[in-house]
Amino acid sequence: MSQSLTGIAASKGIAMAPAFILEQPDMDIQKKSVSDVEQEAARYKKAVATAKEELTLIKDKTLKEMGEDKAEIFSAHLLVLEDPELIDAVEAKIKEGVNAEFAMKEVSDMYVSMFESMDNEYMKERAADIKDVSKRVLLHLLGMENTSLAEIDKETVIIAEDLTPSDTAQLNLAYIKGFATDIGGRTSHSAIMARSMEVAAVVGTKEATSSVQTGDFVIIDGLEGTVLVNPDEKTISEYKEKKEAFARQKEEWAKLINETSVTKDDHHVELAANIGTPQDMEGVLANGAEGIGLYRTEFLYMGRDELPTEEEQFEAYKSVLEKMDNKRVVIRTLDIGGDKELPYLDLPKEMNPFLGFRAIRLCLEKTDMFKTQLRALLRASAYGKLSIMFPMVAAIEEVRQAKAILQEVKEELTAGGTEVSDAIEIGIMVEIPSTAAAAEIFAKEVDFFSIGTNDLIQYTMAADRMSEKVAHLYQPYHPAILRLVKNVIDAAHKEGKWAGMCGEMAGEPTAVPLLLGLGLDEFSMSATSVLPARSQIRQLSKKEAESLVEEAMTLSTSAEIAELVQKRGFITEEM
Amino acid sequence: MSQSLTGIAASKGIAMAPAFILEQPDMDIQKKSVSDVEQEAARYKKAVATAKEELTLIKDKTLKEMGEDKAEIFSAHLLVLEDPELIDAVEAKIKEGVNAEFAMKEVSDMYVSMFESMDNEYMKERAADIKDVSKRVLLHLLGMENTSLAEIDKETVIIAEDLTPSDTAQLNLAYIKGFATDIGGRTSHSAIMARSMEVAAVVGTKEATSSVQTGDFVIIDGLEGTVLVNPDEKTISEYKEKKEAFARQKEEWAKLINETSVTKDDHHVELAANIGTPQDMEGVLANGAEGIGLYRTEFLYMGRDELPTEEEQFEAYKSVLEKMDNKRVVIRTLDIGGDKELPYLDLPKEMNPFLGFRAIRLCLEKTDMFKTQLRALLRASAYGKLSIMFPMVAAIEEVRQAKAILQEVKEELTAGGTEVSDAIEIGIMVEIPSTAAAAEIFAKEVDFFSIGTNDLIQYTMAADRMSEKVAHLYQPYHPAILRLVKNVIDAAHKEGKWAGMCGEMAGEPTAVPLLLGLGLDEFSMSATSVLPARSQIRQLSKKEAESLVEEAMTLSTSAEIAELVQKRGFITEEM
Repeated sequence: MSQSLTGIAASKGIAMAPAFILEQPDMDIQKKSVSDVEQEAARYKKAVATAKEELTLIKDKTLKEMGEDKAEIFSAHLLVLEDPELIDAVEAKIKEGVNAEFAMKEVSDMYVSMFESMDNEYMKERAADIKDVSKRVLLHLLGMENTSLAEIDKETVIIAEDLTPSDTAQLNLAYIKGFATDIGGRTSHSAIMARSMEVAAVVGTKEATSSVQTGDFVIIDGLEGTVLVNPDEKTISEYKEKKEAFARQKEEWAKLINETSVTKDDHHVELAANIGTPQDMEGVLANGAEGIGLYRTEFLYMGRDELPTEEEQFEAYKSVLEKMDNKRVVIRTLDIGGDKELPYLDLPKEMNPFLGFRAIRLCLEKTDMFKTQLRALLRASAYGKLSIMFPMVAAIEEVRQAKAILQEVKEELTAGGTEVSDAIEIGIMVEIPSTAAAAEIFAKEVDFFSIGTNDLIQYTMAADRMSEKVAHLYQPYHPAILRLVKNVIDAAHKEGKWAGMCGEMAGEPTAVPLLLGLGLDEFSMSATSVLPARSQIRQLSKKEAESLVEEAMTLSTSAEIAELVQKRGFITEEM
Repeated sequence: MSQSLTGIAASKGIAMAPAFILEQPDMDIQKKSVSDVEQEAARYKKAVATAKEELTLIKDKTLKEMGEDKAEIFSAHLLVLEDPELIDAVEAKIKEGVNAEFAMKEVSDMYVSMFESMDNEYMKERAADIKDVSKRVLLHLLGMENTSLAEIDKETVIIAEDLTPSDTAQLNLAYIKGFATDIGGRTSHSAIMARSMEVAAVVGTKEATSSVQTGDFVIIDGLEGTVLVNPDEKTISEYKEKKEAFARQKEEWAKLINETSVTKDDHHVELAANIGTPQDMEGVLANGAEGIGLYRTEFLYMGRDELPTEEEQFEAYKSVLEKMDNKRVVIRTLDIGGDKELPYLDLPKEMNPFLGFRAIRLCLEKTDMFKTQLRALLRASAYGKLSIMFPMVAAIEEVRQAKAILQEVKEELTAGGTEVSDAIEIGIMVEIPSTAAAAEIFAKEVDFFSIGTNDLIQYTMAADRMSEKVAHLYQPYHPAILRLVKNVIDAAHKEGKWAGMCGEMAGEPTAVPLLLGLGLDEFSMSATSVLPARSQIRQLSKKEAESLVEEAMTLSTSAEIAELVQKRGFITEEM
């Protein structure tokens, strides 16, 4: 019988193949008292050692068969197994007299939930790594075995509750055409991996594993977010056509790599990319981004025991600036604190970390750390077109203080004979409602704005974007968001400055026409969204987008506004 | 040698007398291993029993000498000593093998910091109670004694690190003229008590106890927030005059109790009071409030094991409505969740409770609980002039849902023959930036707005108002706050609705002229602020206040705006 499931479109594309259900081993872990704790600890150490051997083998095999990129994930897993914070904590727990399985699960769950709650892809990936490694150790402790995806040798779509990094790393793209999962959202590990591997994926279907059986013929529509189980012939042939149309679409997009992003009525906007590390530059160049709209420098500070040196930072910034070959690179100063902890900074535990001591607030107090970063940035400025951006600005006093420190550092450097660019732009993230609502005050004292929608939405709605219970209030198209974004753009233009956006919203097909109509100058997004966005913009007219905004401004809910964009035909079918 | 200290003006008035330093016993509590845990537990139980006997004696004495009000605090303390959650937790800790002192301190510190972090006077008082009781038990465990304030028998000002509820309850107002503390803010327990006892107080001086010695002659200026130690004769005589001027001022204020709140140019505003329980009505009537601008219904739900019944709620609402004798009473529906927990509701633990599942968000899910409250409110509406207000509204969908539920309950009641007023106003708290920024959408669908500044400021600035680390960003006069407040008031007026404010700001002398100039219709504040605010308003002209606002709107920082109000003479000397 044919059946249709709905989920979240996580990665574009259409996959059609027989299904393989990835079974989750049923690990029922009970707390037990253990009298011989030394023996239990030895059993645990043996499981860790076995997991290490196994991972080393998988890593070598992956390196040989699938390349360095994929193998890296297993290096990360090996590091987890060598992390004393985690491994020793489990042992300490065992020595309190509980069984190794329970100790392992409790400690790793604690780390996983801590990392998962952080607003940071890097940290989320660490959570996924720990989950994955912990599962491997647990399976050894329980004497169970992992299902192997690596052995699949014909065209298949994978159906799973969720996919771990180990799972995705084993996917052989010659055979695996796509996947659907029960849980996860657009930013879950499996969704991110699917987009980077360019396989079709639908996540969060809730019931894929219970509705599909191994061998069922399945269509995964990663454009619409649907999963069709045992469809009829007519449907299959419709989807074949849709698949071909999408392939043609991708070819069309690829042709735009060296084109400009201009509307039908000749209005140019800048489509830039967000990056986290210099390694992301390959994707940026492959997707024809016109600049870097957000270089998150946090990664330089994470996963280590002490602050990065000025030299390390300088090399990283310089390498990105050089690769961009005089296109604009907006580098954001350290946005850490609150939920994103750096153990070596010893930050206070906060009741509401999202409303706490972080980013520029922290940098203005820890000025030594801040100055080191600014020095590295100023030195790198000689190698390209640098813009420096301060995060989490709420009051103009903060801008003034940050600029004064920057000036001080600059004078020291030039006095010492170091070359520093004269053309560095200084801008701020607009992600706090106060800054959006009083943007005209800030526009006078900075060179540009970049709107950070993730935070701006959560603060404006007073809804934690990590919380399921208030997810319905995380509304990107709420009338207040449109009004605030408009206010920011208008204020910038009035002072002859530019306004960009580097939040998730900037690349969303629903948002692009609205932002264009509001006059946004720069759209910064993940590199893989650049070409589809360019294609969309080239099909739009600024004038029509302005009339769309005018109508949107009369509506009273986020849903009505999103629907209007759809209804007025601003989103092309294929996207 | 004369010396001057600066702190926070916590309670108006001037006190001049020799100082008494309230010494804090030095309780150095170390963690120790205990082998005989049964004996240690017995020692702990004995200390609790002694503390109970002592509290019973103090309670009886206080009841006889100082009345029921003051004695109640000791009833609350006795309840703490009977609370199994706290008392048993300490015993359990002892049985893990630690000394009683350490166990007591650890458990009580945990409760204290939990309650203190809540945005709620009731909870903060519970924190103070626990601290106080814990100190009493600890002193017994350590074999130390409490300093007694009750024995003071001549005119004195108290200098202390902080004052506990036990301390303040022992203050005999015949002799104690005022106090100064090292720590605390305007909303700390001691500050609240000082205002309700009408004694001069300065809190948060940081160094009062280290700068003053028992016997020093001290002036406590609760108007300016200064403490003068051993001042010269000239200063003393100046302060005598100031004290007399303040006494005359108070007499003048008292004359305003039956006056209206009109400006010099004949513009009327409503000065209303905030209350927490029907017991607060006495203060409301004594201070000539023109209505209740905020009745916080949370207290009905707190400090108990289950939800209050419809009947209990009905009686409370009815009593307030009747006492207000057809003046407007704005009752806010339950604002609980997030940081304000109700143990019996079993709410999820949240990472950012201020951005979480609370207030109307919770009520729209727990509709049974919500309907019970609405039924009680509708039934009470027959007894006065009721306005119902929904808290934490972020999106118009929430207003529509809440109104639909209210309508449903109303139809059920009237179908059953229950009398319900036809003239109930339905309004919302404007305390989330989205609602302030898109106020015109909400103005069409509600009868009034009441701006909640405490939350509006913290969300707009993305600065937890409980966090010391970002306290400098909790800026009531930030240009964005003025703009949002203006937007709310203008939107209301455009639809012929009224706009009030029920946050801390509404009664602040610096805020009153700005709010008047912005066109605010209703100012709701603590009852004791009503008469001074009325006096201030009667000295202002709306037209001048409008010109003040016009100038304020051109400034770029909170400090500049507050300074402008002062500089332009909008704050009369005595306040």
